[in-house]
Formats: sequence, structure tokens, C-alpha cells
Amino acid sequence: MTAVPDPNRRNDAARRAILSTAIDLVGEVGYAKLTIQGIARAAGVGKQTIYRWWSSKGSLLFDAFLAFAGDGEAAALPDTGDLAADLKLVLRATVDELDDPRYDQAMRAMHVEIVNDHLLAAEYVLRLDQPMRELKRTRLRAAQRAGQLADDVELDVAIDMLFGPVLNRWLQRTGPLTHDYVDQVVDTALRGLQPR
Amino acid sequence: MTAVPDPNRRNDAARRAILSTAIDLVGEVGYAKLTIQGIARAAGVGKQTIYRWWSSKGSLLFDAFLAFAGDGEAAALPDTGDLAADLKLVLRATVDELDDPRYDQAMRAMHVEIVNDHLLAAEYVLRLDQPMRELKRTRLRAAQRAGQLADDVELDVAIDMLFGPVLNRWLQRTGPLTHDYVDQVVDTALRGLQPR
Repeated sequence: MTAVPDPNRRNDAARRAILSTAIDLVGEVGYAKLTIQGIARAAGVGKQTIYRWWSSKGSLLFDAFLAFAGDGEAAALPDTGDLAADLKLVLRATVDELDDPRYDQAMRAMHVEIVNDHLLAAEYVLRLDQPMRELKRTRLRAAQRAGQLADDVELDVAIDMLFGPVLNRWLQRTGPLTHDYVDQVVDTALRGLQPR
Repeated sequence: MTAVPDPNRRNDAARRAILSTAIDLVGEVGYAKLTIQGIARAAGVGKQTIYRWWSSKGSLLFDAFLAFAGDGEAAALPDTGDLAADLKLVLRATVDELDDPRYDQAMRAMHVEIVNDHLLAAEYVLRLDQPMRELKRTRLRAAQRAGQLADDVELDVAIDMLFGPVLNRWLQRTGPLTHDYVDQVVDTALRGLQPR
């Protein structure tokens, strides 16, 4: 038998190469200077190949982030039955991820643009923030059923309180981003600031 | 008697004009394109006048933010004896401030640069974040003495948890920035996420 090239597999490889190139390139040149042309050149494909799959550099970049963050893994938050332990696991992994210069640069480039660009911010909310938020809500709802989270907690406020501090500290470099810090955030958020 | 011009008062007026111009200009052109020359021209003063008081556009801009935020008022956080009420007051005022397009634009311009620029981020931490943080710590220490805040709470974690969500929601536009939202953040942070 002769080896028959599998067009699906070839497409997959090309797609992955393009997404990976986009992450590298946005980290190098920033979002403003990122072009479809530039990504095509760096990935060694034609511009038309890219336009076949993506209508804009924004949607390409968000796919790249989703792929980089690991599509499969991100399908759910861990649920061992221990909410605090699971949240610490996720947040420690986030800290480790942001320690990777490639991811750090790409994420910074995107966040800078989001701060200034309404349309990109809307796409960020729709494609990254909301899907991730829904996974977090699902985990928190399970915690409510398990009696580890108060029933009347506003889930979005809980999410902002658990996941926001890490993002802030990273973006504004207001302090060291360590496992200890995220553990404290989780424990403090769960227990509250008031005396018990 | 003839009116003798008061050089101190004239200096004060010139200083204020320069700071106010810097806020306007950074909102218009962004930090990267902000120049001492441009500020001097827009404020109608000579470049040398600016260099007499500030060594860089960064330090000028941080003075402008401190002046805009109201030097005197920012000397302490309110302390009526009710921690939750005081925090809500401060955070509602922050929300109102960010609703001012002039402030919004200038703050965004600064934050964008902080994300990418290590040196500016260090200046931000030193000149804005740390002094504000110290005021917040002072208020939280008073709350600890009054029995409204647990003694073993890490104050910096508490501050990130109370003030971070508003900053995030504003920068990333992930949801509406309302008085209701900040009230929920304060109540949830104080009470904690666990069932009581």
C-alpha cells in the first residue's frame, strides 16, 4: 500500500502551525503591528490559507490563545470535592503559565489592546472571558451543592474575587506572583475578611 | 499701593496648568507619544519651565494623577467606624471617577504603558500604588482594632480582593461598573464565600 496523504491531518498541522506562529509573533511585535500577511509569511503559508479559516487577526489570535491554553484541558475545572484545593491548583497553574515568557508577552500584547479597543474587548469577553467564566461558574455551582460555597453568593463576584487579584498583580506588577500568594487569595476569599 | 505679583502664586498656577494639560494630552495621544515638548506647547510654557520641576514625563504624569485624584482628599480613607460603608463610599467614588472620559482616557493610557514598561511600572508602584496602599492598610488596621476585620488577615491580600475587581472590570470591560457591583464586592469580601 502507498501512503495516502490525509488532507484532514495536513490541515490540522497547518492550523496548529499558524496558531503557534500567531502567539510568537504577537509577543514580538504587539497586536497593533500584527498582520495576517506577517503571520502567513512567518508560518510559511499563503494568506488565502489563513483567510479560509479566520476572518480577522482578532479571531485568529483568540483561537491561538484557546489552543495555547489547551482546548481539552480547559473543558472543565478540576473537581476533587475540595473547592479550596481545586482553586489553588488552577491558580498555581496560571501563575506558572504567566512565568513562560512566550505566553507572558502574547497575553500582555492582547491585554494592552483590550484596554484601548472596545471591539477587541467585546471579542475577548465573548470568546475567552465568558467561556472560562462558565467553566468557573459550573465548578462553583458544584461547590454550592456540596455545601462548600454559600447559596446566596453572586457567582460572578466570587469569580472576580478569586481570579482577579492574580491578573491584576501580573498586569500591573504590584507584587510577586507566587504560589503562596494565590493560596492566600483562595483562603481569604473563602473565609472572608471579617472575624469569625 | 501697587499690586506686587506674587511669584509663588504664579508658579502654582503654572504648575497646575501643566499638570492639567498633561492629563488631557495623555488621554488624547497616549503615553508613548506624550512628550515634554508637546505638554509645554499645549500648556503655553517653555520646556525649561517643565524641566525645572520634573525630570521626566513619567514623573510629571504621576504628579498629574496625584493632583487629579485630589492630593488633600487622598490623605486618608474615610473612617466612620463602619468598614463596609466606608469601603463602599470609596469604591463608588472610584466608579464615578472612571466614568469621567477625561480620567478614563488618561488612566487607560497609563495602564497600557505599565503593562509593557518595567520602569514605568516600578514608578507606578512607588508613586501611586504604594502610597494609596498605605492609606488602605491604615484604614484596615483601624478596622482590626475595632474588631471588624480578622486579626490574621494579610492586609495586601485584603486590599487586592477589595480594590482589584473594580480595576479589572474597568480595564477589561468584562461587565458593567456600577455601585451595585462594588457593594456586592465589599459585602462578599467581608463575609467570605463559604457558608456561615
